[in-house]
Amino acid sequence: MKKLYVIKIGGNIIDNEVKLAAFIRDFAAVEGLKILVHGGGKLATKLAADLGIEQQMIDGRRITDAATLKIVTMVYAGAINKNVVAQLQANGCNAIGLTGADGNAIKAHKRNHPTIDYGFVGDVDEVNTGLLKSLLEQNIAIVLAPITHDGNGLLLNTNADTIAQETAKALSSIYDVELIYSFEKSGVLMNADDDASVIPSINPTTYSELKEKQVIFAGMIPKLDNAFAAINSGVSKVIIGKAEQLQQLITGEAGTTINP
Amino acid sequence: MKKLYVIKIGGNIIDNEVKLAAFIRDFAAVEGLKILVHGGGKLATKLAADLGIEQQMIDGRRITDAATLKIVTMVYAGAINKNVVAQLQANGCNAIGLTGADGNAIKAHKRNHPTIDYGFVGDVDEVNTGLLKSLLEQNIAIVLAPITHDGNGLLLNTNADTIAQETAKALSSIYDVELIYSFEKSGVLMNADDDASVIPSINPTTYSELKEKQVIFAGMIPKLDNAFAAINSGVSKVIIGKAEQLQQLITGEAGTTINP
Repeated sequence: MKKLYVIKIGGNIIDNEVKLAAFIRDFAAVEGLKILVHGGGKLATKLAADLGIEQQMIDGRRITDAATLKIVTMVYAGAINKNVVAQLQANGCNAIGLTGADGNAIKAHKRNHPTIDYGFVGDVDEVNTGLLKSLLEQNIAIVLAPITHDGNGLLLNTNADTIAQETAKALSSIYDVELIYSFEKSGVLMNADDDASVIPSINPTTYSELKEKQVIFAGMIPKLDNAFAAINSGVSKVIIGKAEQLQQLITGEAGTTINP
Repeated sequence: MKKLYVIKIGGNIIDNEVKLAAFIRDFAAVEGLKILVHGGGKLATKLAADLGIEQQMIDGRRITDAATLKIVTMVYAGAINKNVVAQLQANGCNAIGLTGADGNAIKAHKRNHPTIDYGFVGDVDEVNTGLLKSLLEQNIAIVLAPITHDGNGLLLNTNADTIAQETAKALSSIYDVELIYSFEKSGVLMNADDDASVIPSINPTTYSELKEKQVIFAGMIPKLDNAFAAINSGVSKVIIGKAEQLQQLITGEAGTTINP
């Protein structure tokens, strides 16, 4: 099986022009098949503010009303996605930017929550591996914006971590997939206040121990639960670390590797 | 050779929700390989106004400064392109939305004009027929936004008529291409004030006569010059007419057909 990297970058990179340019150089240099999933960053919030549209948040998630959906579609699928693609091209990496609507790449449904109306937020149903494979096999890197569709004409704002995970899982039937989540810290830390205390690897046994000792807690638990869910669905490896260390994350010299 | 339709719709359709929905139904129903090229419409102008960004126009063309480039990228490649793609999917037509940066589909250079600085406006150099062919052969309709790139990281605002023409010309080495320009009138008119006076077909000889008699004048001349240029570069047929009559334009029951 060929190796495929699915790499998610967060808003902290998107929002920083210098870090983004450096990341794009590093991503362009990654050998082999690759998919980049980008989050949104602060651009959408800023545009909404400039237009006088009020943003509602519940549990750290944006409530996507119709006006916000228009904004995230413009910012994520337009401004961010196309600039990342153009910069990858400038770095000699042929890339194509897609939302879930494009080529029916990722189909989702509008979230149906018993008590909270998240608005136009999508939960992923299906990843179209045929299209993605055909592009990857032409040596085209795929850049996914966190927007999906429901097949009935509705675009849906969708969590970028979820898109990365679902894409990695779906493609693990065809490729040897490594899923890399980059965020602001250097990895999973033994001591949350010490960025040098990276735990180099975690498996199900050590995960249980670390949770019991409350070394891993709060927001890190859903992240790691998702990582193990990906591994249980066929993903070979999940790596969590800093986008600024992309090359070392891939070689295993940095970050935390989640193993089966 | 397989038939390929390259269909350009203008801003008057993009700006009208009802007309756009009807056009999308008709486009989805077109048999065979097809590419849709969309213009911008008034959305970009409106967003610029809402954000207090002043628009400068010279000879009916938007001067694309850095702020305007951001806006057209968001509106054309984000809002319009992705909504058209999602609506095509809803009509059972698998579609993928691209700018020229995506898969290096259309490379351009920043316009170098002796007296006017158009800003970030692109003149097309090359269409990547390999990528377009690979998508078309997967029965995916391609939706092109009027944004290209220069290969050095710069996105460029590019005239949609030109994109349609260059794409049609480039693909005419692989397909039997019919290029359809839709606009607000029913075709090339004998009498500019009478929308029923459509000239059903024009060839180089009748074109010379019509220009001599000043039946064809002003803005229609560059449109027709472009049509003949496309035909001289291998496009089989150019049809000019109303988007509302797409089916009849294809069957030859409406519009003006430009023949070699």
